[in-house]
Amino acid sequence: MKPNFSLRLRVFNLNCWGIPYLSKHRADRVKRLGDFLNRESFDLALLEEVWSEQDFQYLRQKLLPAYPAAHYFRSGIIGSGLCVFSKHPIQEFTQHVFTLNGYPYMIHHGDWFCGKAVGLLVLRLGGLVLNAYVTHLHAEYNRQKDIYLAHRVAQAWELAQFIHHTSKKADVVLLCGDLNLHPKDLGCRLLKEWTGLQDAYLETRDFKGPEEGCTMVPQNCYVNRQELEQFPLGIRIDYVLYKAVSGLYISCKTLRTTTGHEPHSGSPLSDHEALMATLCVRHSLPQHNPSPTHGPAERSPLISVLREAWTELDQGMAQGRWWATIAGYVIGLGLLLLVLLCALAAGGEIREVAVLLWTPSVGLVLAAGAFYLFHVQEAKGLCRARAELQHVLGRAREAQDLGPESQPAGLLGQQEGDRAEEQ
Amino acid sequence: MKPNFSLRLRVFNLNCWGIPYLSKHRADRVKRLGDFLNRESFDLALLEEVWSEQDFQYLRQKLLPAYPAAHYFRSGIIGSGLCVFSKHPIQEFTQHVFTLNGYPYMIHHGDWFCGKAVGLLVLRLGGLVLNAYVTHLHAEYNRQKDIYLAHRVAQAWELAQFIHHTSKKADVVLLCGDLNLHPKDLGCRLLKEWTGLQDAYLETRDFKGPEEGCTMVPQNCYVNRQELEQFPLGIRIDYVLYKAVSGLYISCKTLRTTTGHEPHSGSPLSDHEALMATLCVRHSLPQHNPSPTHGPAERSPLISVLREAWTELDQGMAQGRWWATIAGYVIGLGLLLLVLLCALAAGGEIREVAVLLWTPSVGLVLAAGAFYLFHVQEAKGLCRARAELQHVLGRAREAQDLGPESQPAGLLGQQEGDRAEEQ
Repeated sequence: MKPNFSLRLRVFNLNCWGIPYLSKHRADRVKRLGDFLNRESFDLALLEEVWSEQDFQYLRQKLLPAYPAAHYFRSGIIGSGLCVFSKHPIQEFTQHVFTLNGYPYMIHHGDWFCGKAVGLLVLRLGGLVLNAYVTHLHAEYNRQKDIYLAHRVAQAWELAQFIHHTSKKADVVLLCGDLNLHPKDLGCRLLKEWTGLQDAYLETRDFKGPEEGCTMVPQNCYVNRQELEQFPLGIRIDYVLYKAVSGLYISCKTLRTTTGHEPHSGSPLSDHEALMATLCVRHSLPQHNPSPTHGPAERSPLISVLREAWTELDQGMAQGRWWATIAGYVIGLGLLLLVLLCALAAGGEIREVAVLLWTPSVGLVLAAGAFYLFHVQEAKGLCRARAELQHVLGRAREAQDLGPESQPAGLLGQQEGDRAEEQ
Repeated sequence: MKPNFSLRLRVFNLNCWGIPYLSKHRADRVKRLGDFLNRESFDLALLEEVWSEQDFQYLRQKLLPAYPAAHYFRSGIIGSGLCVFSKHPIQEFTQHVFTLNGYPYMIHHGDWFCGKAVGLLVLRLGGLVLNAYVTHLHAEYNRQKDIYLAHRVAQAWELAQFIHHTSKKADVVLLCGDLNLHPKDLGCRLLKEWTGLQDAYLETRDFKGPEEGCTMVPQNCYVNRQELEQFPLGIRIDYVLYKAVSGLYISCKTLRTTTGHEPHSGSPLSDHEALMATLCVRHSLPQHNPSPTHGPAERSPLISVLREAWTELDQGMAQGRWWATIAGYVIGLGLLLLVLLCALAAGGEIREVAVLLWTPSVGLVLAAGAFYLFHVQEAKGLCRARAELQHVLGRAREAQDLGPESQPAGLLGQQEGDRAEEQ
């Protein structure tokens, strides 16, 4: 790498709202997206909600000259909806499907069937290793009474852990996607604190787009106005986040966000706005290279957000166990009912009614059984995330107690500290 | 690190056969295992099939003085059964649950309900970063007609990928566990070729244990004799695998395997044999440090095993799609039957029979629906593994074509080569 080395990276991110049969003007929007990406020729285009593999294949063909590398991340029943197009060769890719992703019986919400995931691409650009991640977390359907909050926090934690453990040798880390989290939401803070990723919107000095960087705005004709009732300016839930290792300095030169319509045709590409960031990586100057050593004062936001997430996961776990217990009682009652119906049928009294009630009772027991198993698994998944989080919390507290002098390298991504802990 | 640096690591691995109510003499065996581990004081004890969390908690209490760090990996409905006890502080841990793990309707096999996984521990020993992995793959119930072969190959691939992506900054990598794979099985070769892990049994010059290193032997009174009918000496399915980064040399000084009974009490600890390895890590001498550059000749086993695995996953995918299609037809027929029954009931003809048949028909449609969804997801999971594998295969072939001169660093774990590829 030359001393005056500098790498410019143009990145595109969009939640494409590509639900077959349900999303309006899908084919037209996908066509226009292809035209737009070809025209702009980004280094990387990371897309979410490309639910139809045909749409991906169409884009792949269309974008082949400008983006010779592409990948579609398959998972779950419907898919993860994630895909990428790259101007540069993809060295490696893999994915991690989130353990928890809503409830199978919430069919109308559909997230459980999707297999929400995080996709990882490893690229080598100008001698640097770039780990690019694309993700889409569980949707938020009711902000006031969010039954998926614990799942989304667990997903944010798994995402952060996946990035933490897979990016240890990366020079530059990039995360794009629809987090379904507002900037100050617990999951967003947890992700940023644990990975050390920086938010392009907050870091750039050159932003053009909707007020407060919103990525779902009322100006967009596809947006569900009811969803934005509480937020007249819109909401910011799509992100470009990044970081670089010590010795390198990464900055966001410009960030552009569409404002309810695509700049060329005037019509929106999706119900979300597209993010277009120009990142610049170069050798760090001392003033640009904050020491990785986190002193007690700097580490306290991590401790505080870990504590908050622990509480949320703990509550979710208790809730999951409560539902499993209820299901257990229903199974017991259902089995009792079945025995009673058998006795009635054998005795000849109200035989017909007994026979008629037999099948719904079996159905009840089976449904309660499935419900029980699901919530046992949910509680286990939340318990796992809580245990990992508690371990990190313990180490962060210990590091804080020891003070910065005894910490040659920061906790974050450095594997220092010496606490043997078990949840 | 001093120039004459040397690290000795004593590792214990056992599949504990700890199924509540089903495994014989479980409580006694767990107690004896605790005594044994306390007596021997290993650096790391990695256990599989600890299905009951109470057993883990019992061991944790018992082993606390000698093994102050411990972790139980929770996943799925029953759990992963994996746990670890460590003499040294655990810096970090996380886990990856395998996407595919058998079929939920094969209740008598039970693997699907377990949430089989790979657990990762990061430890810092003598200035080195050690990534220790513990895993347990899907069981093999019928070697002649193995319906789980594609799933086990996919698991071996996911395991290899998880190790590959999470160990890039580790100095030493250790994998212990019950792979349910014989040494020459496809999954085992795939794992070793892609990760570069070495087999302690094959590498050590000082092995004491059953012939051919078997870890399930007929001498063990708990072993199901029928399972070993084809293998009079027993089978080797439990492993200690390791590797070190360039600059370090790791060797297995001794490997001991129990021979159907625990050395002290004379009774077996499990239906599997325990593995006890003494590993030694030191600075590499030139003759001990094979160049990471794989020439065409060396790379061909990787290409050949990748090709073989690709075929297996492809066949599994076709099978999954076939089952999904069959389920689709059954759903269609079931719906037709329901319409017919409605018409008959409305018409008053054989009304009672129609009403009686209604519920089983609904059951049939629902069961076929679940079956359909499961196999769609199975095909997607296999397709995902096949795509990742195909990408690696493409890069390996290209590297082979280019020859060693153009490869400053090997393909394995070095992120070299420049192939933009899509499955």
